[in-house]
Amino acid sequence: MANKIRVTVWNEFVHEREDEAVKKVYPRGIHEAIADFLGKDGSLSVRTATLDQAENGLPPEVLDSTDVMIWWGHMAHDRVSDEVAGRVQARVLEGMGFIALHSAHFCKPFKRLMGTNCSLVWREADERERLWVIERGHPIAAGLGEHFELPMEEMYGERFDVPAPDATVFISWFEGGNVFRSGCAWERGAGRVFYFRPGHESYPTYYDANVQRIIANAVAWAAPRVMLPGAAGCPNELVALERIEAKLGAKR
Amino acid sequence: MANKIRVTVWNEFVHEREDEAVKKVYPRGIHEAIADFLGKDGSLSVRTATLDQAENGLPPEVLDSTDVMIWWGHMAHDRVSDEVAGRVQARVLEGMGFIALHSAHFCKPFKRLMGTNCSLVWREADERERLWVIERGHPIAAGLGEHFELPMEEMYGERFDVPAPDATVFISWFEGGNVFRSGCAWERGAGRVFYFRPGHESYPTYYDANVQRIIANAVAWAAPRVMLPGAAGCPNELVALERIEAKLGAKR
Amino acid sequence: MANKIRVTVWNEFVHEREDEAVKKVYPRGIHEAIADFLGKDGSLSVRTATLDQAENGLPPEVLDSTDVMIWWGHMAHDRVSDEVAGRVQARVLEGMGFIALHSAHFCKPFKRLMGTNCSLVWREADERERLWVIERGHPIAAGLGEHFELPMEEMYGERFDVPAPDATVFISWFEGGNVFRSGCAWERGAGRVFYFRPGHESYPTYYDANVQRIIANAVAWAAPRVMLPGAAGCPNELVALERIEAKLGAKR
Amino acid sequence: MANKIRVTVWNEFVHEREDEAVKKVYPRGIHEAIADFLGKDGSLSVRTATLDQAENGLPPEVLDSTDVMIWWGHMAHDRVSDEVAGRVQARVLEGMGFIALHSAHFCKPFKRLMGTNCSLVWREADERERLWVIERGHPIAAGLGEHFELPMEEMYGERFDVPAPDATVFISWFEGGNVFRSGCAWERGAGRVFYFRPGHESYPTYYDANVQRIIANAVAWAAPRVMLPGAAGCPNELVALERIEAKLGAKR
Repeated sequence: MANKIRVTVWNEFVHEREDEAVKKVYPRGIHEAIADFLGKDGSLSVRTATLDQAENGLPPEVLDSTDVMIWWGHMAHDRVSDEVAGRVQARVLEGMGFIALHSAHFCKPFKRLMGTNCSLVWREADERERLWVIERGHPIAAGLGEHFELPMEEMYGERFDVPAPDATVFISWFEGGNVFRSGCAWERGAGRVFYFRPGHESYPTYYDANVQRIIANAVAWAAPRVMLPGAAGCPNELVALERIEAKLGAKR
Repeated sequence: MANKIRVTVWNEFVHEREDEAVKKVYPRGIHEAIADFLGKDGSLSVRTATLDQAENGLPPEVLDSTDVMIWWGHMAHDRVSDEVAGRVQARVLEGMGFIALHSAHFCKPFKRLMGTNCSLVWREADERERLWVIERGHPIAAGLGEHFELPMEEMYGERFDVPAPDATVFISWFEGGNVFRSGCAWERGAGRVFYFRPGHESYPTYYDANVQRIIANAVAWAAPRVMLPGAAGCPNELVALERIEAKLGAKR
Repeated sequence: MANKIRVTVWNEFVHEREDEAVKKVYPRGIHEAIADFLGKDGSLSVRTATLDQAENGLPPEVLDSTDVMIWWGHMAHDRVSDEVAGRVQARVLEGMGFIALHSAHFCKPFKRLMGTNCSLVWREADERERLWVIERGHPIAAGLGEHFELPMEEMYGERFDVPAPDATVFISWFEGGNVFRSGCAWERGAGRVFYFRPGHESYPTYYDANVQRIIANAVAWAAPRVMLPGAAGCPNELVALERIEAKLGAKR
Repeated sequence: MANKIRVTVWNEFVHEREDEAVKKVYPRGIHEAIADFLGKDGSLSVRTATLDQAENGLPPEVLDSTDVMIWWGHMAHDRVSDEVAGRVQARVLEGMGFIALHSAHFCKPFKRLMGTNCSLVWREADERERLWVIERGHPIAAGLGEHFELPMEEMYGERFDVPAPDATVFISWFEGGNVFRSGCAWERGAGRVFYFRPGHESYPTYYDANVQRIIANAVAWAAPRVMLPGAAGCPNELVALERIEAKLGAKR
């Protein structure tokens, strides 16, 4: 691995340019807010990429130099090209970490990695959300207590249609009566995938200390342990490791 | 559910028409050989479909009347249209069972459902394969002993790049020195997916009593428990189940 | 398996004899209330057993003729002998189903099967509990909608210290701000284990139609697929299935 | 965590004193052979403990100062006291790592942590064992290739009666025709458990470079992320986080 983990924060960057209320919360975009807190102490190498850049900001050379990708998207999922989505998926299977935030539950790379609908129910009603730490020993929960709260968030509720997570790190309680598996971890290929629920564009969620800690923890957790570039191939192992008895009726 | 489980056996049906040696083993195609043993006792409603039929044999009305789909493909995976592959995936997530046989590890619907490369290593050398039953309590292993053998098969070896199975029912030992997770079960959406390794086109594997029993068991296991047709949608639950406190600074 | 699933409903039967308020809710004991609804349609063979009977009501002959055991206990866990607890655990590993209800999270057989503390947080405050169905395709959720409510229950909250369930069927929302994985399924040995949260002794929970449906579903799900009586042994497979090369330096 | 991971290598230390052939392979005992390679580079703090010491070498103060425990036992499992076994289990649930080697599949702490029989089949016949790396991205597989071999080992074969592992890192192929899940990882409470199959007392397995690397990797993987000393308790959370509506019929 590189000395510093190389993080690319991807954002569709639409709400923050089109909606004045959102712009007030994230003047330079959600991606820059995330890059800011991740980059603060200098221990990570952080850059950003957005939808409107060439190749959606993710040409092969960016992927090849990314250890962990963070993804935020909402209203423009379809504007990410299939080629780019496939490129991200392939890189995850080779070992890159992938962190899907909030409405990225419906982004192309996450849906491809899950293989399911990734659907859920939702409501925008300024609800209090309390995240319970289910797996206190999980690295992504490091430094947290038993639970923490966000004063106002969009509600996401179950049924969240994803494969049963390898680890369910957080479960949310919502004021309006719903629950949600808000921190879900999976291994896919040689890579690691984490879904983290909070982060609606109209709330200052990404300035919250617990949320920042979780995303930083997730980056460390998702950093590649190994990169396996040829993992998509299906090689013919012509020579056996053990002697194979010649059989009557062999056809080749 | 329907009174009888409705099974559709899909086959690309290419080898059996183009290769004389294969034709000798499966004169009417692998799909008909499978449909034969599944249909014998009349407890299932079985039909077949093949690649060259209209819409690859899988128009919506066939999907809509299928409880469990069995899939065999090898050299023509790319000739299945993306639309049909997406249709199969969607139906599985709604509750249909899906059984991928042998080289179907690389078929479009299975790869989409897994989200991984589904790659492996392979060798054609008439190897003896011994399948060990790992989960003897699993319904798919019903009626089997501790292990059984196939005298000659193609070798598939690890690393098999799939998500860690919910249940690893079988692990194969190969004469040439490899191992393989040969019976893997997953839940995806409301549906169930089973991958079963044996079944190279040039061997009479689908006439083997244990193999037939496993496929029949898998059909029973994969039959829908419930169908959830709207599972892909993301509904707005406008009205909360509990009272939500009005908050200062609410933006809507 | 037997024609009818043979269910034994075990209860410590202490609260209902010592506490007048509880006696009003369950005059003949929780075990009889459960046996009543399970036995109603005659499709199951149901009996009960209680702590004060000889061998805690569970001599070997009772275990040997039980397919699924349901367990309720709370204040007298320690009065179950280690021998009986070991007997129940052993029978589960051979294939018997085990359903732990509510405060049975701390009973000896469940703790032995889990290997963890099985601890949680709790509060008695007449809270509204809403159970969300997470795995709508799971047999234990058959016939339920997206969620259901219990008007008053004891609260159990996370962290519930159990191994990550094979399936998390239900997650509860509590009025007081907590969440809980209320329906958890595991495979252990050849047997199946289900934990179901609701059922505090002072509430009429076991008369609730959804609760009754879930327990009946769980009995069907947990019924043995196969019984493997010798599974605790560690046999020497002296004769190999394949020829083993004689090696220099062999020591025996 | 401490600056250096504190490892305690426990061994029953019976074979090496009673059997001349074994003594030749491990003159100072298996525990010292393991402590030697783990301690070599000074990055770990390593000590040993054995069965015949007071409290089986594991008084509370040893447990309290251990981050990862490695366990080898075979013929004297029953001589470990229940109290010590319970102490080890409790410490794992609080966060300590536990690595069970070879015949430790039947030791008391491992059986308690698993909750199953932990049984298997076995044969002593100088067999070649080939370990395939199933999860190449797993930290315990760091630095390994696709597989490696041990020229002679005791055979352990499936069915290995353990809960389905959170990660199956290795699967073994045996010359005599068996397979085995040889590297199995579980999370239990706040702690991590790893079972590693090789290591029969009469073979020089613990001098093998790959085996040494795996055990060292497992120590790093199993080191506590957090210690949760009170995890066994079941606290009453008297004060709710949210207002609970007073209900008619409330009993307290």
